[in-house]
Amino acid sequence: MDEHYLTVSTVGEMAEAIRSLRVRGAPLIGIAAAMGVASAARRLGASATRSSVREACEILGETRPTAVNLKWALGRVQRRSVAVADGVELGAALVEEAQAIWDEDRAMCRRIGEAGLSLVPDGATVHTHCNAGALATGGIGTALAPIYLAHAAGRRVQVIADETRPLLQGSRLTAWELTRAGIPTTVIGDGMSASRLSRGDITCVIVGADRIAKNGDVANKIGTYPLALAARAHGVPFYVAAPRSTFDAATPDGRRIPIEERRDDEIRGLPGSGGLSVPADAAVWNPAFDVTPAELVTGYVTDAGLLSRHELDRLAHPAQAAGVTT
Amino acid sequence: MDEHYLTVSTVGEMAEAIRSLRVRGAPLIGIAAAMGVASAARRLGASATRSSVREACEILGETRPTAVNLKWALGRVQRRSVAVADGVELGAALVEEAQAIWDEDRAMCRRIGEAGLSLVPDGATVHTHCNAGALATGGIGTALAPIYLAHAAGRRVQVIADETRPLLQGSRLTAWELTRAGIPTTVIGDGMSASRLSRGDITCVIVGADRIAKNGDVANKIGTYPLALAARAHGVPFYVAAPRSTFDAATPDGRRIPIEERRDDEIRGLPGSGGLSVPADAAVWNPAFDVTPAELVTGYVTDAGLLSRHELDRLAHPAQAAGVTT
Repeated sequence: MDEHYLTVSTVGEMAEAIRSLRVRGAPLIGIAAAMGVASAARRLGASATRSSVREACEILGETRPTAVNLKWALGRVQRRSVAVADGVELGAALVEEAQAIWDEDRAMCRRIGEAGLSLVPDGATVHTHCNAGALATGGIGTALAPIYLAHAAGRRVQVIADETRPLLQGSRLTAWELTRAGIPTTVIGDGMSASRLSRGDITCVIVGADRIAKNGDVANKIGTYPLALAARAHGVPFYVAAPRSTFDAATPDGRRIPIEERRDDEIRGLPGSGGLSVPADAAVWNPAFDVTPAELVTGYVTDAGLLSRHELDRLAHPAQAAGVTT
Repeated sequence: MDEHYLTVSTVGEMAEAIRSLRVRGAPLIGIAAAMGVASAARRLGASATRSSVREACEILGETRPTAVNLKWALGRVQRRSVAVADGVELGAALVEEAQAIWDEDRAMCRRIGEAGLSLVPDGATVHTHCNAGALATGGIGTALAPIYLAHAAGRRVQVIADETRPLLQGSRLTAWELTRAGIPTTVIGDGMSASRLSRGDITCVIVGADRIAKNGDVANKIGTYPLALAARAHGVPFYVAAPRSTFDAATPDGRRIPIEERRDDEIRGLPGSGGLSVPADAAVWNPAFDVTPAELVTGYVTDAGLLSRHELDRLAHPAQAAGVTT
């Protein structure tokens, strides 16, 4: 496994980095997009204009449709730009705003970790999906935050990470960051989760979210919904960890969340493989997310505490809440 | 995608072909093992002995623990050997027996197809898992048999095949044989099945089986159980197709079925890929099968007809039934 750093200089490069999942994870997409707009404005210096900011926000806003954090972060950057004059000050103000989004995200991750700490007692085994860790946020992650804090508190904790086809964020990212932190991690195939849960020794499942609808339905990486079904079948509590920027009071339920469908080649080829595993004559369907109904979610681990679905309104931003028409 | 033919000459080569999944699928494993014993005996000619047959059966019987067809087919070969003298006649008798197992399997596949034909009406979309087709049997398959017969009868039918990690039998085998036969097939990731089933247009799920316990619990390729849970959540009928040699009246329920755990590298590496996707410090768990509880199975598509779980005793071989101690 290799570790590479990618330097992104332009809005176009940032858009491509987001589309190609070089930057991924709902919170980190928001931070990266805000940083992309800000650094482009700063580079323009005296020529930076609010219209160039608007244009950059439009380009970046269309890179991924499902995570609501992207639109939320770009909205913040754009609102900030409206309050500043064109020119050098604009770049400085947007860098400040983007840095604030990052700093707040880091603090939010920690609060999420604290809200979920009681879910990870000494000796816990936590099952997670995809990557909602440090590699998906500006801090210690969302789903993994309670695990990091439990580990830091000296509790013995181990993690089951499913590999998360097609792009293997579970094996490539979650197992990488957790084992690096010294947390024992076992990788399993996505189809093995139900068997693993049936053994009766999983403390809880914690996953992240790309969007939480007003009724508590959760869009998250494809494969989350069957994991929730298996957890329910075996009486294992199923938690969704997310910052308030993931809550979208303007989307009444999961059916209204747009689900990104990605390119065939993520299924036809395998990461790191030159070969193809699907015959050319076969079609492919590759949705990047699924929707887990609120009734399968035991609780929401948020920066406003551990909430039931009836308490989610606490996460609404005043601006969002005001815009809700139900 | 390439097509290779492998010539197997010795019992050791056949054992390795079965262990490494060059030959796979419960019915085909039985046929191949019987052929392996028979052809070794024939090659020995005048020196063939019943004790060499017993030894070959022991070696082949230990290659895979879960599928009961393997032991069943080897049992048949061995019983036949007992009735013949050592020498040239032994080889000839065993080749005849192995050929009979193959011929009967071909006929059983067809009867399974006929038993399940009503499940695949014109316009049907069938979801399957792994490969229980022509590449897993001596005939037109088990789970795929009703699909082949429906297609041959001029019905429009399409198939959703999940890829079936780790070894991708769904994309590499099922999609290959179905598209070759002109049956439209869509490959999806294993974690996408629940989303696909939620759309409301799947006629039914049909899967194969490696062992059916007396109470109707089904051991089949890992990932079958979560598919059954998702089918149940969306009211989609879930059928298990298998010949009577898969029914094991001596195993009371799924908890008693030994589940093969395979090597880490099936998860660490990806087929056709030189690279590794799991960090060296992470552990791996790789069970090859899971157990679907009988209550999730709508019906069993067998060579004795479409059965409910209360009718499974019809599948018991007299010898098996006599050996049951409950």
